[in-house]
This record gives sequence, structure tokens and C-alpha cells, in this order.
Amino acid sequence: SRFEYVKSFERENILLPQTHIIIRVDGKGFHKFSDFYNFEKPNDINALNIINLSAMKMMETFPDIILAYGDSDEYSFLLRKNCELFERREFKLITTFASFFSSYYQFYWNAKNSPEDQLKIDRLPTFDARAIVYPNRENIIDYFSWRQVDCHINNLYNTTFWMLVLKGGMTTQEAENRLIGTLSSDKNEILFKEFGINYNNEPEMFKKGTIYVREVNDFPIGKYRENPTIDNLQRILKRNKKSSINKYHCDLIKESFWNDRPYLFI
Amino acid sequence: SRFEYVKSFERENILLPQTHIIIRVDGKGFHKFSDFYNFEKPNDINALNIINLSAMKMMETFPDIILAYGDSDEYSFLLRKNCELFERREFKLITTFASFFSSYYQFYWNAKNSPEDQLKIDRLPTFDARAIVYPNRENIIDYFSWRQVDCHINNLYNTTFWMLVLKGGMTTQEAENRLIGTLSSDKNEILFKEFGINYNNEPEMFKKGTIYVREVNDFPIGKYRENPTIDNLQRILKRNKKSSINKYHCDLIKESFWNDRPYLFI
Amino acid sequence: SRFEYVKSFERENILLPQTHIIIRVDGKGFHKFSDFYNFEKPNDINALNIINLSAMKMMETFPDIILAYGDSDEYSFLLRKNCELFERREFKLITTFASFFSSYYQFYWNAKNSPEDQLKIDRLPTFDARAIVYPNRENIIDYFSWRQVDCHINNLYNTTFWMLVLKGGMTTQEAENRLIGTLSSDKNEILFKEFGINYNNEPEMFKKGTIYVREVNDFPIGKYRENPTIDNLQRILKRNKKSSINKYHCDLIKESFWNDRPYLFI
Amino acid sequence: SRFEYVKSFERENILLPQTHIIIRVDGKGFHKFSDFYNFEKPNDINALNIINLSAMKMMETFPDIILAYGDSDEYSFLLRKNCELFERREFKLITTFASFFSSYYQFYWNAKNSPEDQLKIDRLPTFDARAIVYPNRENIIDYFSWRQVDCHINNLYNTTFWMLVLKGGMTTQEAENRLIGTLSSDKNEILFKEFGINYNNEPEMFKKGTIYVREVNDFPIGKYRENPTIDNLQRILKRNKKSSINKYHCDLIKESFWNDRPYLFI
Ligand SMILES: Nc1nc2c(ncn2[C@H]2C[C@H](O)[C@@H](COP(=O)(O)OP(=O)(O)OP(=O)(O)O)O2)c(=O)[nH]1
Ligand SMILES: Nc1nc2c(ncn2[C@H]2C[C@H](O)[C@@H](COP(=O)(O)OP(=O)(O)OP(=O)(O)O)O2)c(=O)[nH]1
Ligand SMILES: Nc1nc2c(ncn2[C@H]2C[C@H](O)[C@@H](COP(=O)(O)OP(=O)(O)OP(=O)(O)O)O2)c(=O)[nH]1
Ligand SMILES: Nc1nc2c(ncn2[C@H]2C[C@H](O)[C@@H](COP(=O)(O)OP(=O)(O)OP(=O)(O)O)O2)c(=O)[nH]1
Ligand SMILES: O=P(O)(O)OP(=O)(O)OP(=O)(O)O
Ligand SMILES: O=P(O)(O)OP(=O)(O)OP(=O)(O)O
Ligand SMILES: O=P(O)(O)OP(=O)(O)OP(=O)(O)O
Ligand SMILES: O=P(O)(O)OP(=O)(O)OP(=O)(O)O
Ligand SMILES: [Mg+2]
Ligand SMILES: [Mg+2]
Ligand SMILES: [Mg+2]
Ligand SMILES: [Mg+2]
Ligand SMILES: [Mg+2]
Ligand SMILES: [Mg+2]
Ligand SMILES: [Mg+2]
Ligand SMILES: [Mg+2]
Ligand SMILES: [Mg+2]
Ligand SMILES: [Mg+2]
Ligand SMILES: [Mg+2]
Ligand SMILES: [Mg+2]
Repeated sequence: SRFEYVKSFERENILLPQTHIIIRVDGKGFHKFSDFYNFEKPNDINALNIINLSAMKMMETFPDIILAYGDSDEYSFLLRKNCELFERREFKLITTFASFFSSYYQFYWNAKNSPEDQLKIDRLPTFDARAIVYPNRENIIDYFSWRQVDCHINNLYNTTFWMLVLKGGMTTQEAENRLIGTLSSDKNEILFKEFGINYNNEPEMFKKGTIYVREVNDFPIGKYRENPTIDNLQRILKRNKKSSINKYHCDLIKESFWNDRPYLFI
Repeated sequence: SRFEYVKSFERENILLPQTHIIIRVDGKGFHKFSDFYNFEKPNDINALNIINLSAMKMMETFPDIILAYGDSDEYSFLLRKNCELFERREFKLITTFASFFSSYYQFYWNAKNSPEDQLKIDRLPTFDARAIVYPNRENIIDYFSWRQVDCHINNLYNTTFWMLVLKGGMTTQEAENRLIGTLSSDKNEILFKEFGINYNNEPEMFKKGTIYVREVNDFPIGKYRENPTIDNLQRILKRNKKSSINKYHCDLIKESFWNDRPYLFI
Repeated sequence: SRFEYVKSFERENILLPQTHIIIRVDGKGFHKFSDFYNFEKPNDINALNIINLSAMKMMETFPDIILAYGDSDEYSFLLRKNCELFERREFKLITTFASFFSSYYQFYWNAKNSPEDQLKIDRLPTFDARAIVYPNRENIIDYFSWRQVDCHINNLYNTTFWMLVLKGGMTTQEAENRLIGTLSSDKNEILFKEFGINYNNEPEMFKKGTIYVREVNDFPIGKYRENPTIDNLQRILKRNKKSSINKYHCDLIKESFWNDRPYLFI
Repeated sequence: SRFEYVKSFERENILLPQTHIIIRVDGKGFHKFSDFYNFEKPNDINALNIINLSAMKMMETFPDIILAYGDSDEYSFLLRKNCELFERREFKLITTFASFFSSYYQFYWNAKNSPEDQLKIDRLPTFDARAIVYPNRENIIDYFSWRQVDCHINNLYNTTFWMLVLKGGMTTQEAENRLIGTLSSDKNEILFKEFGINYNNEPEMFKKGTIYVREVNDFPIGKYRENPTIDNLQRILKRNKKSSINKYHCDLIKESFWNDRPYLFI
């Protein structure tokens, strides 16, 4: 028809080939959302389980995702470098991730909660999404380190803050004032001295967030290290094709996590 | 932390100011989705009601949407020209629309269907989304005309196709072959001569799709026509601030639809 | 060859169809350039003639340019709305404009100056370029008004500044201090009271910049105004095909300039 | 002024950080340009010298350029990975390169040619420019290999073609037909058997194009190879700061060229 010309106004962003794509989703207005559904403070295990299930399901749905990291109301997904999903069309990738993630979250929420705690139409969990491309391995490690440091800082703050309020009897305003200008060591001390809490003993999931990795089963890291080349890596992968998705709450900032899984970068 | 530099790799697309933004969502793999949940062929009223409810809820959620048009598994949303939602950041806009639309659809589906027809985790309704910007009024009319012509063409085809199969006893392959190269008039004739169906009498929702418009209540179109300038229009709107969202299945291609609602373009 | 894949890393920006494209070029480091070649202060007629000749030549070279406006070391070119030059590929458009404009400027400079004033390899005139798209007529008028206001402000400042220095015996620092916080009226008064200069009598080219317009010869504006529609305009243009490029130093901010030339916007 | 809002319609492309930027310029319509100025066929040494001088001058002007490769009417410039020229703003980069390159070419042409061979206003040398970013070392090698293979293929074709025409007495149409479907080996044979030309003995500049490299003086490649890490490389560079721009017509496709200059990739 004579109207078809309007289609030509569409544009595409093709994400740069041979770069590592990360897609991060983040809950929209989860401050209010967590209030509305009475999340435990500072960490609601139930809600974390649901966002984790959703992330795990994303990995099952999209084989190009090789690693996922999340905490609070956000998750970051690393796609394999040679990913050709939607021919790397950015709009398709990010809207599809936003749509699936929201859908899984809603589904699992209702499945894991009792009838009286089902989601309400005017307060559904929704997520924005963005894609970022990184040229090299170092950037990827730095990216996930950035998110994990952020998780740590927020969690230490929130843990102390809510102790002051819930156990210490402060108002939220008083707690906020108390924490202005404090260092990590100060917060650790407040927790320990005033509430007998050793922050190190807090649950790993709260302190470190959650990692899912698509791991090559029984990857012979020793054999790889004998000859750490791409060719050798590819030869090893040809013989070790089986993989599974595993869950961790470990340290991502240490290089060893990445050194042990060289296949994440090819 | 020393990792923060990774944030600087993010980019933004700001949609051109003073243009009309249209965001179109489209169901992912609804061919399979409609099969899986046994949609009526060619049109499942139940499913159409659900997508329409979702679109209506979008309009309530986002006051910047002034018109929505949809059929099959898609909906197009027109935002007001001076919309500043998310400062016109494209990624935020499209991922938020994809996320909300999927969320509403899942919610309404489960609300409107019986317990045995609830959605399954491996077949959730998801949607991609894209934004397109148009510089002028004519483009907007042409855009919606394009979608409505598409609706008409598909519906006439599907109606005839499924008549041939469901009533005419053809296999889907035979029906397809029968329709190759046929004109609209041929399909109208098949429907009428072979199945006694006057296509004109088919439900308007199937033939024309569904329109939601945010309408100024009792807009004095006569007063506007006496002096069809932006200044006059703005003066009128100052006195007529109340609006409501109304639903139609009417012709969008005729200029009169748009002439009657000059406020859609400012 | 196995290397061809590298070509696929190229990207394109297609400028939004049916918008008005403006390309602005601006001299790189003309502060130093004008010093090096001893420009008259504040306005070097010779240099202005050369940049004007270059702009005029651009219009002869690219029939899609319908208007050009320039002052100081910059020029803005308006392309016709339905321009398809390089299929509206932004990179091609802006690099071609930067290249041609620099080339013409160098050529005319050497042609119009004496052998001892020829350009030196380490101080050649170069220009950056950028494209901006605007959706409507009003934006275009505002754009050129913006540039002309800028010309006026700079010229009034520069005229006063250099009077204070060259005639008033101030150092450049003293002149700068003297002008801090002054209004237009203050500068007019300084010029008049201290130097007997009526700013209004300054050359129009300095005050208003230079405009080239591709004008329809003997455009019957009366006939157009009887029926100011696009159809009528197109009918008139079919009968009046001859055009010529004319030069002005007039006011662009007054609507009349644009009202008299309705063909600039189609 | 109330017009300033138009500035907000400008957009920027920031080239992805930590990627290698290549900017390629290519002569506009050099088919006609070379005809007009009577270039020698297939290779005009004079013209090649001028384009080479222009490229060399680019490297002196922009210290971020670390390597340049060119042949025919094109040149590709490799910028150092951490280049921050114009904050990596794409439009600034490509228009500046187009402008400078055109300017240098015009300058050198007129400087190196006799008064009767000076450039004419209606046939000035102009260049488009584009930027491409590559994530890794291998891409860069492949990019320059791609250009050098292209140079080789074109030069072998052109050499044979013009032999057939200029020495073999064929029309250009006959020569074209003769070469359709021929392999490299066929063309080598035509040159040798029919014209006594051993293609291997043709000038290296024609066969391989021209390379400029910003080289670290007396780079102790042995010391680097003892410990081929970035840290060691950076330590070596701290002690060897002097560099010079050298010219080659050698093979870029062999890895050794790149292995000998590890500093090109940091
Ligand atoms: N109480 C509680 N709150 C949580 C939990 N997880 C996340 N939240 C809340 C705390 C934060 O206010 C919020 C996440 O912060 P964001 O920066 O993403 O802000 P928010 O989602 O409100 O706004 P946004 O739409 O992302 O800009 O979610 C939890 O386990 N327990
Ligand atoms: N039976 C039936 N099918 C419908 C109805 N509405 C939509 N569909 C199906 C028919 C089409 O196969 C499909 C919509 O076409 P699309 O071009 O959007 O394709 P699809 O969603 O399969 O793929 P996509 O992911 O959009 O590329 O949805 C309905 O009311 N009844
Ligand atoms: N004396 C004199 N100077 C002029 C004349 N026309 C332009 N200029 C100088 C004055 C300004 O310093 C300069 C133009 O200002 P710009 O903002 O374009 O700065 P400039 O080109 O130095 O830097 P840029 O590379 O554009 O960021 O050119 C003239 O006729 N006479
Ligand atoms: N006779 C002769 N011609 C040359 C020489 N160097 C380049 N040329 C001509 C041959 C080609 O026709 C032309 C370069 O090819 P291009 O693909 O760049 O085409 P052209 O510049 O004509 O068009 P364009 O504006 O780049 O699309 O320049 C030379 O040394 N001698
Ligand atoms: O944590 P982010 O990156 O989402 O930061 P933000 O401040 O929420 O910014 P944005 O508007 O980009 O989501
Ligand atoms: O109908 P559209 O525009 O979605 O067309 P498509 O063929 O599905 O293309 P796309 O891959 O852009 O969704
Ligand atoms: O006058 P402009 O728009 O060139 O402004 P600028 O301050 O020179 O900025 P830019 O770096 O975009 O040329
Ligand atoms: O050799 P290129 O890349 O310039 O190829 P082209 O066919 O000239 O294409 P373009 O229009 O991108 O210059
Ligand atoms: Mg955010
Ligand atoms: Mg959030
Ligand atoms: Mg968050
Ligand atoms: Mg589609
Ligand atoms: Mg679909
Ligand atoms: Mg569809
Ligand atoms: Mg500037
Ligand atoms: Mg300048
Ligand atoms: Mg300037
Ligand atoms: Mg080209
Ligand atoms: Mg060329
Ligand atoms: Mg070329």
C-alpha cells in the first residue's frame, strides 16, 4: 500500500561484532515495590529466591548467556562473544530480555507465594534493560567486580542501617545521620559492638550476590594451563561438550574465578 | 572503586525532540503461542480481549500515550509530541514498554481464564518493542493506516483460509494453494459464494482492529474549525481539560478521524 | 578473501526521512588562523569574501542546498526536506561537506591573495562539520535566528572591544574588564559616546551575516497567498522552474523572510 | 535567546572506549579526477607521492595516529587504542580527518606540480572519511591485510588491463572481456608471455601500497620476547621514548610485521 514508506523510518543498532555483550535488567521502582509487598529488611530471602529463579530460567531459555550475576533488584547477563542472537540487533535483545525477565518474575512470584500474596495489577514487577559491549576480558572482570563491590557496599550499609532502626530503636532519619561519613570499618564496628554481629558471618548470598555460570563439566584446567592458547582450549572443548549451570555466592573479584573458566572469553 | 570506569561504556539514544514517537510491541512467536493455548481460528475473541485490556492499562499507566492501535499480537502506541518520559531515552522507553505490556498480558490472561487454562512457565507471552519517530501529522496518519490496511489484508486472508479448511474440508496446504495469487475481490467471492458469508458483516473488531484514544471530553470541534490555529486550539484545551479513554473499531484511514481530534498532534 | 569480514564492522547513520537537514561547518582554531594571517579586527572583509565565495560554490556544487547562512568562521547549509544525497547517510554527508568546504576555502584564498600571502602548510584552513535534523518549519526559522542572534551579539561585542583597544588605547585585558556585565545598550552607548560610531550604520554584512538563498525567479507570492496549500505551491512551482542563488545581509528573524519563500519548506 | 533550544537537537556518537579506531579516507570520484588530470595508467607515481606526503603530514599533525596504510585514492589511519582525540566524538574525528586530508592533498598537489598543472576549482581533490572500531589485535591485522589484498588484486588487474590496451592494442572493452573469469595466475601469465613482464619485479609501492609506522627507535624486541607481557612492554617503552615515522612497502599480511612492533596494540 502507499503507506508502507513509514516502515523505512525504523532504524537498527547492531552491537559491535566480536565484543562481549552484557545485558543488565533492573527492577523499576523496587523501593516502592518492596514496601508494597512487605519485603524483609534489608534482605528478603523469598524475593531473592524469585529473582534468582528468574535469572536461572533466562539461562535455560537463552543458551548464549554464559554467566549471570545479580543482587537486590538487578541482574547482569553475559553473552558469549560470538553471540548472534537477533543478529545482535540491540532493540530486539534488550526488549526481549526485559519482557522475558518480567514474565518469569511474575510467574515465579505467584507460583511461590500463597494465594493472598499474589501480585496486584497496579504493582506488577517490571524491569528496564540495557546492553553494553566490552572489547576484552579485563573489562568483563571489571564489570562484574563493579557490580559485586556495589552489592557489598549496599549490603553493609543496609545491614547496619536496619540494625540501628529495627534493633537500635532509631528512626530512619537518625540512622541515616549516624551513618553519614562512616567507613566500612565503622559499620563493621557498629554491627559488632552494638549488636554482636560479625558481618563476615552474614549469609554469603547477601554479601556477595548470586552467580550462575554455564560450566563445562569436569573442565581439565590443568591440561589447559600446560598450553594456554585458544587452539588448545578449542581442542579441549571439543572433547568436553557437556555443560551445566551452577550457582555460587563467591568472590568474583579474585582473578582465580575467571582463570579457572577460560572458556567464558571465547 | 577502580571498576567504575566500565559504566562509561554505556551509550544513550535520545529520540529527536518535537517528533511524534510511536512504540510498537509485537508478540514473540505467537504462531506457536496461539497453537499451544488453542486459540480460535482465525480470531480468538478471548485473546483479543486480553491484549486490548493490556493496551488500555498501558494508557492508564502512561499518560503520555494518546492513542493506541492493535490487532493480532501487536499494539502501537502514539506518545504526545512533547513527551519527555525518561527524557526520551530510547532504551528506557522500549524496554519499559516491553516489560509492562508483557506483565499486563500475563496478569489479565490468568485473571480472565479458568484455573486449568493458566499460563505455563515454558510458554509465557512475551513481546518485543521498538520506537519510531515521525516528524509530522501526515506520517502519523499514514503509520496507523499502514497498520490498519495490514490488519484488513491479514484478516480477509485468514478468514477465507480457515473457512476453506474448517468448513471447506481442505488441508492447510490445499487452502494455501487455492489462495495464491487471489485478489481481495476473489476472497470476498469465495466467502460469499462458497460459504454464504458477507465479509462486510464480519465483526468490526476483526476487520478494523481496536483503537483507544485519549479524547478531550465534549471537544468543541466547531469552535476550533472557526479558527484552526494552534493558539485557538490551546485556548480551547485550557477550558476543556477533562479527557477519557475511548475504544473504537472504526476506520482510521479516513481523514475525518484525525480532523475531529486536532489535539492529537500538538 | 578471509579478511573481508572486517567490512561488517562499519555502521551507518541514516538521517530521519522527511526532516530538514542542516549541516554546519566551523573553522578549526580560527582564533589562531586569523592571528597568523593578520586578519583585520574585528572583521576582515577579505576573509569574509573568501568564506562567502566558498559557501556560494557549495550551493552550486550541491543542488540540494537551498539556503546558506554564515558569519565569522562558520556556515550553515539547509538541505531540501526530501534530500536523498548519499541516501541521507550522515557520515558521507558531513565528511563530504567538510572536505569540499575546506577545499574551496583554500582554493579561493590562494586565488584572491597575492603570492606572498599564500597559505602555509602548517596553517591550512580546515573545518569540522555536523548534521542536525529538524522536524518542522518553525525549528528551521529558530535555527537560523539562533545563528543570526549569535552573529549580532558577537559582532557588537567585538566591534566595541576592538574600538576600546585600537582607538581607546586600552589593553585587551582592560577592554575585556570594561565590557564585563554590559548590556547591548551599554555597548551601543560606548561606541556612540566615546567613538562617535552609530552601530546601526555598521556594514550589514558584519551585523547580520550573509545569506544565500536558492530563489524561484519571480515567484508569484500573491498567487500563493490566495490559496496557501502545498498543492497550489507545487502547481506554481511547476510553472516557475527557474531559480537563481541570491545573496542578502538581511534580517532572518522576521517571519516575512520565510513567508515570502514558502518553497523552502517542501 | 529563546532560540537556543535548537542546539539540543544535536547528537553525538562516542566511539567505544578501549577499541582500536581506524579512519579511512577515500577520494571522491577519483576515476574522473585521474582522467581530468591525466594520471599515468595504471599507476601515477606523481599522484601516489602526493597522497603519501599527505598521509605522512597527517601523522605529524595527529600524534594519535600510529600507522597509516594507503594505495590508489585511499588511506587508512590507525589510532592508538587509548586515543582521546575529541573525546572520541565520531563526527569531529571523521570530519576533521576529511578536512585535513583534502587540505594537505590540495596543498601538496599545487606545490609539486608546475604552474600549468595547478588544480582547477571545478575538479578539486576531495575525500570522504569513516571511522570503524575494532576490539582486538587480530581484527587490526585482518583489516590491513584486507586493504593490502585489495591493493594487490586491483594492481594486478590494472597492470594487465592497461598492458593489453596500451601495448596490446586492444580497446578497453576487449581488454575487459579478455580478463573476465581469469585467475591471478592467468594474469601473471599474460603479463609474462605476452609482454615479457615478470609481475614480481613491478615496483613494491604499486604491488603492496605504502605503510607509515610510528616506530619506537631501536626497540629491543629481544628483551620484550623474553617476557612478552604488557607490564614488561610498558617498562621498555619508558626507557625508549623516542620514535620516528618510517615508510615501507612491505608485506602486512605476515604476522612478523606486527610481532616486531608489539607497541602498536597498547
Ligand atoms: N527491603 C528490601 N528492599 C529491597 C530488596 N531488594 C531490593 N530492594 C529495594 C531497595 C532499593 O530501594 C531498591 C533497588 O534500588 P534501585 O536503585 O534499583 O531503585 P528503584 O528500583 O527504586 O528505582 P529504579 O526504577 O531502579 O530507578 O529495591 C530486599 O531484599 N529487601
Ligand atoms: N488462531 C489465532 N492466531 C492468532 C491470533 N492472533 C494472532 N495469532 C497468530 C497468528 C500469527 O501466526 C501470529 C502473529 O504473527 P507474527 O507475524 O507476529 O508472528 P509471530 O508472533 O509468530 O513471530 P514473531 O516473533 O513476531 O516474529 O499470531 C488469533 O486471534 N487466533
Ligand atoms: N580578527 C578576526 N577574527 C576572526 C574573524 N572571523 C573569525 N575570527 C576569529 C574570531 C574567533 O576567535 C574565531 C571563531 O571562533 P570559534 O568559536 O569558531 O573558535 P575557533 O575557531 O578558534 O575554535 P574551534 O576550533 O572552532 O573550537 O575566529 C575576522 O573577520 N577577523
Ligand atoms: N590512472 C590512474 N587512476 C588511478 C590511480 N589511483 C587511483 N586511480 C583511480 C582508479 C579508480 O577509478 C579510482 C579509485 O577507485 P574508487 O573505488 O575509489 O572510485 P572513485 O574514487 O571513482 O569513486 P568514489 O567516489 O570513491 O565512490 O581512482 C592512478 O595512480 N592512476
Ligand atoms: O544503576 P543504574 O545504572 O540503573 O543507574 P541509574 O541512576 O538508575 O540510571 P538509569 O536512569 O540509567 O537507570
Ligand atoms: O512486522 P515486523 O515489523 O515486526 O517485521 P518482522 O518481519 O517481524 O521484522 P522484525 O525482525 O523487525 O520484527
Ligand atoms: O559553536 P559550537 O556548536 O561549535 O560549540 P563548541 O563549543 O565549539 O562545541 P563543539 O565541540 O561541538 O564544536
Ligand atoms: O570501498 P568502500 O568501502 O568505499 O565501498 P563503496 O562501494 O565505495 O561504498 P561507500 O558508499 O560506503 O563508500
Ligand atoms: Mg536505573
Ligand atoms: Mg530498580
Ligand atoms: Mg537496582
Ligand atoms: Mg517482528
Ligand atoms: Mg509476533
Ligand atoms: Mg504480529
Ligand atoms: Mg565548535
Ligand atoms: Mg571555529
Ligand atoms: Mg566559529
Ligand atoms: Mg567508497
Ligand atoms: Mg574513491
Ligand atoms: Mg578508492
